[in-house]
Amino acid sequence: MALIVQKYGGTSVGSAERIHKVADRVIHARQQGHDVVVVVSAMSGETNRLVSLAKEVADPPKAREFDVLLSTGEQVTIGLLAMALESKGCAARSYTGAQVHILTDSTHNKARILEIDNKHMRADLDAGRVVVVAGFQGIDAEGNITTLGRGGSDTTAVALAAALKADECQIYTDVDGVYTTDPRVVPKARRLDKVTFEEMLELASLGAKVLQIRSVEFASKYNVPLRVLSSFDDTYTGTGTLIAAEEESDMEQALISGIAFNRDEAKLTLLGVPDQPGIARDILGAIAAANIEVDMIIQNIGTDGTTTDFTFTVHRNDYAKTLEILQVVKEKLKAREINGDDKIVKVSLVGVGMRSHAGIASTMFRALADEGINIKMISTSEIKISVVVDEKYLELAVRALHTVFDLDQAA
Amino acid sequence: MALIVQKYGGTSVGSAERIHKVADRVIHARQQGHDVVVVVSAMSGETNRLVSLAKEVADPPKAREFDVLLSTGEQVTIGLLAMALESKGCAARSYTGAQVHILTDSTHNKARILEIDNKHMRADLDAGRVVVVAGFQGIDAEGNITTLGRGGSDTTAVALAAALKADECQIYTDVDGVYTTDPRVVPKARRLDKVTFEEMLELASLGAKVLQIRSVEFASKYNVPLRVLSSFDDTYTGTGTLIAAEEESDMEQALISGIAFNRDEAKLTLLGVPDQPGIARDILGAIAAANIEVDMIIQNIGTDGTTTDFTFTVHRNDYAKTLEILQVVKEKLKAREINGDDKIVKVSLVGVGMRSHAGIASTMFRALADEGINIKMISTSEIKISVVVDEKYLELAVRALHTVFDLDQAA
Repeated sequence: MALIVQKYGGTSVGSAERIHKVADRVIHARQQGHDVVVVVSAMSGETNRLVSLAKEVADPPKAREFDVLLSTGEQVTIGLLAMALESKGCAARSYTGAQVHILTDSTHNKARILEIDNKHMRADLDAGRVVVVAGFQGIDAEGNITTLGRGGSDTTAVALAAALKADECQIYTDVDGVYTTDPRVVPKARRLDKVTFEEMLELASLGAKVLQIRSVEFASKYNVPLRVLSSFDDTYTGTGTLIAAEEESDMEQALISGIAFNRDEAKLTLLGVPDQPGIARDILGAIAAANIEVDMIIQNIGTDGTTTDFTFTVHRNDYAKTLEILQVVKEKLKAREINGDDKIVKVSLVGVGMRSHAGIASTMFRALADEGINIKMISTSEIKISVVVDEKYLELAVRALHTVFDLDQAA
Repeated sequence: MALIVQKYGGTSVGSAERIHKVADRVIHARQQGHDVVVVVSAMSGETNRLVSLAKEVADPPKAREFDVLLSTGEQVTIGLLAMALESKGCAARSYTGAQVHILTDSTHNKARILEIDNKHMRADLDAGRVVVVAGFQGIDAEGNITTLGRGGSDTTAVALAAALKADECQIYTDVDGVYTTDPRVVPKARRLDKVTFEEMLELASLGAKVLQIRSVEFASKYNVPLRVLSSFDDTYTGTGTLIAAEEESDMEQALISGIAFNRDEAKLTLLGVPDQPGIARDILGAIAAANIEVDMIIQNIGTDGTTTDFTFTVHRNDYAKTLEILQVVKEKLKAREINGDDKIVKVSLVGVGMRSHAGIASTMFRALADEGINIKMISTSEIKISVVVDEKYLELAVRALHTVFDLDQAA
C-alpha cells in the first residue's frame, strides 16, 4: 500500500472517453491498494481556446486576469474526472489550486509554489477518497489566482507528492518513457528503465516532450521519485521510466544513459578581443539585456597571445538579433572580427557513469572522427559532454554514438 | 455619485465584441461619477457546452462536481471583462464567488446565499477600481464550490447590492424593460417605467424572460431597487423599468400594471368527493409526492350538498401523469368522476391599485363576456385576478383586457 500522485496531461484527458480511461486507471491503482492523488491539465485544445479568447479581448491581456481565465481549463477537467470516478462507484473529490491552498508567489503567469496545505487531501485520503487536483494553478498570499506557466501541471504533481511525502509521482503522457535518444533519429533507441535526476536534467532536450525540466529540478530537490508512463497502455503493465536519486547499485549501470541533441543552435564568435578582465561580462551583458539566452560559452586565448576569442551559442531564432548586438559590442571592445554560423547542432552524451570512468570523451571524439565529422566546439560537465557539429552530421553523429556506447536495442 | 451594481446576462457577454460593449458601458457609468460592481453570467452557449460535457462523462453527474465544472463559465467571463476594462485604461479586478466569500448553504446546484463579505470589494471601490464578480456561484462553509441554480446571476447581483447597500441594482438584458404584457400578443403593449416588487412577483410569467423571480423576492426582502435595462442600447439613454417598493406617490398610478398569462396550464376536477376533513390533503398529497406542482386550487360544495368538487391546475406536461394519480385517488376517496381539460390558459390582471379600487373584477368579467369568452375558473389575490379560459381565446382575452384597462400605447 503506497501513496501515489498521478499526473495526466492534456491529451490524456482530451475527451469524455479519455477521461473515463483515466478514471479506470485510477480505480485500478485503488484496487492495488494504493491511495491516489490525481493532478490534471486542461483538456487538449482548451488552453489554446482560452488564450485566443483573451487575445480577442485584450492583447496583451492583464496578467492577473489572464490567470483567472486560464485556470478555468484545469477546473473543467477536475470536475469531469471526479464525476467520472463517482459514476464508477469510486469516491472522489476535486479541488482547485486555491482550495488546497497551493500558495505561490505573486508572479502571475509563471508563479512559483511556496507552500501546500495537505490537510484537506489527507482527510480525503483517510476517508478512502481519490483526490483530484487542478494542475498549473495556485493562489498568492492575497488570494489572487496564479498560474505556474508552461508545464505547470507537472510541477503541481511533484509539489503535491513532496507535500504528501508520496511514494511515487507518476507522470502519464502519450509516450511510454524516456528513451536513450529520439527514436525518430535512431530507430534502435531504447526505453530507459531508470535515469537519475541529474541525467534527466542534462537530457532536457529529449525529455522536454515528456516532462517539464522544472518539475525534475523540483523532484530532485525534494527527492520525489518520478515515473514517466503512457496513459494509452490499456494493459496497465508498462513500467515506464523511473527518474530518481542515484543509488550505490546504480554504479553498475551503463556508462551512458542517453544522447541528447538540439537542432536549434547557432554559434557566434568575437575574434581578437583585447584580453582584459570584464570581457565576458561586457559581451554577455549586452546579449542578456536583449533577453536572449546563451547556451554554451567558450573563451580561448587568441593566437597572438594578447587577445582572446570568445564563442557562444544561442537559439537559432535569436541569431540575427545577436549578430546586430555583437556589431555594437565589437566597436566598443575594439575586437577584430565577428564570426557566425547558424547551421550547427549540439549533440550531448549524458551519464552519471562518466564520473567514475575515464576515456569516455576520447571514445566519443574517435567515433566522430571515424565518421569524418569535424567538431566545432566542445563543452563538458561532470555527467555530460557536448559537441557542436555541422547540422548535416546530426543523424550520423547520434547514430554512431548510440552504437559505440552500447545503447542500441538488442536485435 | 452612487454605488451601482450592474448585471449582464449571457447574450450581453456572448462574444469579445459584446464584452467590449459592456466594458464601454461600465466606463460610461464610472465617467458619470458612479462606483460600479459588475456581475456577469457565462457567455451564451458556454453553460450548455459544459452541461453537455458533463452528460457525456456521467449522467446524472455528481452534484458537487457539476458545480465545480459549471462555475468555470462565469469565471471565464470575469477574466475577460476585467481584461477588457484594463485594456481601456479602467482599473478593474475580477473575483470568483469564492474570492468574495459568497457563503451559501451546501445544496449543490441550487444553493442559497447566506452571507457576503464585502471587505475586498469595498477596498477595491475605495481604490477607484471596478469590481467584476462571477454570478451564479459561491462556496459553502467547508469551502466547496456551489452554484445557485437557474437565474443565479440575478440573485448574485441583488445579494451584492444588498451587502454593499448599493443605490441601484441594474439588470442588463436583451429587452429594454418590463412590458404591460407580451408585445408578441399585444403589439400595443407598453414598457412600464415602474412596477412594485409585489406586482413584479405576480407578473412572473411575463418577467421570467427578463429576470428570475427569486431575485425579485430577494430584492424585495432587502429593499434593493432593481432596474431592468437593455445592454443593446448604445446611446445609454434608456431608463428601462424600475422595480422597487411601493411608495405613497404610487397611489396615483394606473389601477392595473400588466396582464400576465400562462399557456401551459391544464385543469383537472375530481367530482363528487365525499365532503370530509382532509380531502384536499389526500388529493394534493398524492400529486405532490409525484413532484408535480399545483397552481390554482378551487374547492366548491357539490350540487347534492354532501359531496364536494375539487378543481386544480397543473403544468400541461404533467397532465397525463396527474390523471393517472387521480384515478387511484378517486378509488380511494370513492369520488364519482374525473374531469380534465388540457386546452386551457390562465390570464391574470396584476396591479397594486386593485387594493384601493373596487369593481376591477366586474370590469374584467364584463370585458370577457362582451367578447363571448367563457370563464372556467376564477382565483383572486390581493393584487391579482386570474381566470382560466379556453386556450383559443387567449389572444382575444389579453387584447380586450389590455384596452379596457387603458394599457395600450398612445397612438
